[in-house]
Amino acid sequence: MSEARAETTIGNSEFDRDTALVPRGPGVHDAELSAGWTIFGAVNGGYLLALAGRALAEALPHPDPFTVTAHYLTASRPGPARIRTDVVRTGRTMSTGQASLVQFAEDGSEVERLRVIAGYGDLGALPGDVRTSAKPPSMPPYEECLGTRDASGASDEVAAMLGTTEIAGRLDVRLDPETSGWALGKPSGRGGMRGWLGLADGRAPDPLALLLAVDALPPTAFDLGLSGWVPTIELTAHIRARPAPGPLRVAITTRNLAGGFLEEDAEVWDSADRLVAQSRQLARAPRG
Amino acid sequence: MSEARAETTIGNSEFDRDTALVPRGPGVHDAELSAGWTIFGAVNGGYLLALAGRALAEALPHPDPFTVTAHYLTASRPGPARIRTDVVRTGRTMSTGQASLVQFAEDGSEVERLRVIAGYGDLGALPGDVRTSAKPPSMPPYEECLGTRDASGASDEVAAMLGTTEIAGRLDVRLDPETSGWALGKPSGRGGMRGWLGLADGRAPDPLALLLAVDALPPTAFDLGLSGWVPTIELTAHIRARPAPGPLRVAITTRNLAGGFLEEDAEVWDSADRLVAQSRQLARAPRG
Repeated sequence: MSEARAETTIGNSEFDRDTALVPRGPGVHDAELSAGWTIFGAVNGGYLLALAGRALAEALPHPDPFTVTAHYLTASRPGPARIRTDVVRTGRTMSTGQASLVQFAEDGSEVERLRVIAGYGDLGALPGDVRTSAKPPSMPPYEECLGTRDASGASDEVAAMLGTTEIAGRLDVRLDPETSGWALGKPSGRGGMRGWLGLADGRAPDPLALLLAVDALPPTAFDLGLSGWVPTIELTAHIRARPAPGPLRVAITTRNLAGGFLEEDAEVWDSADRLVAQSRQLARAPRG
Repeated sequence: MSEARAETTIGNSEFDRDTALVPRGPGVHDAELSAGWTIFGAVNGGYLLALAGRALAEALPHPDPFTVTAHYLTASRPGPARIRTDVVRTGRTMSTGQASLVQFAEDGSEVERLRVIAGYGDLGALPGDVRTSAKPPSMPPYEECLGTRDASGASDEVAAMLGTTEIAGRLDVRLDPETSGWALGKPSGRGGMRGWLGLADGRAPDPLALLLAVDALPPTAFDLGLSGWVPTIELTAHIRARPAPGPLRVAITTRNLAGGFLEEDAEVWDSADRLVAQSRQLARAPRG
């Protein structure tokens, strides 16, 4: 991956600065949605999930997201936002909370962007047993995968997409060539997307960054030969372990494109071969 | 499956009577949690999801659940319950709502059992395209699968479990013999559960019954050689099409048992070979 810069740490990185919260009152934080995390000009859903996740970590007695569901109500835009959190229940090992992220109309009224419900716990307190039968995704080494920032040979459509996709500068994505044919006009048709993923400035992954990671690769719809915007209706992520430092591997699959909707199932594996996150989202299929 | 009784229809069945709602005010319904849907004496999570789903269908302008997430906060018991719904957003093709199901402590105070957030739409209005690449689960015909109500040869532990599992009388479950070895003390260790599923009184499936179906089979933990209660923390179900009449096929898999938690991924297929529901839940792994 990119060389980690000496000054980049968890807490001091692009991702941390762009998810910073300003306390405004009990259960209320202000935030600034950064233009650095947009795709097609809209703010990335994983970045929004991480922002809400950070606010919930402030509100709940447990530090780590275990299961987070977001419903994306309206398209977020770069600029000011406010996050309200409510504690639903606190227990000994887990607590449950809700969050609502709003932005502001021209007349100052609030427009809700996403509604979140989440269960939090302490990943560090879990027993060490691992009986995972899933296998890490099979893909070539990082050096043999293709950077999304390298648009040489890409179709005009893909180049135009990358031009409005600021997030490409914040992430270090290297796609398995088997799932990147779409960029050259040759999608595999299988509905998969696999790649190495890191933050471009070298910040190590943590549970909040995993909320970003589950929605950071190009949509599987591209590998199905569809193009255009794939708006997420709902996304649920399970964070199962603190990730080890180093690059993540993300594999996303779509098996049920029907009736104008599709699911995207993501797995995130860390450098220690641990399945650290699983997610599923329901999205509208592009018409293209 | 069981012969459908002439008088059993959608709207007039055990499932419909046991999910009946009594309006109590704007966005408030009373319900009676039936002892008929308990497992180990606790009320089944899919039944609770269907009950909340019915209340949300009353509250929202769209009829069908598209994506429903429930966080199970405390264990529900048979008896009176109240469901409050809130409309989060209404749009042209979809609307979003929340629900809270509570029961009552001895002093009359409310204890919240589950918190739900859901997106609703109109399954009948979706385009007819189906590009599903998933395949229906491979399992023997209904007649060659094993009824959970037939406990002959079952271990004492399984027989005891069935004795406190009233839901076995409400459902017609026939398990694939490959995933029912646990009942005879010989779990496969693979973490799968597959079976035919219907309502015992012959009521045809509908979207609400699919919310029940995703959590109706025995837990995959049994096939992993674990026994005991597998409490659901969170369950998200996507309903993708109205099911055709006739028996459902349900396949559930667990691939990540680690740190004291496991996921259960369910697929529900209808008699027309359509993938009508997908779900994932995060549950605590039994210690056994």
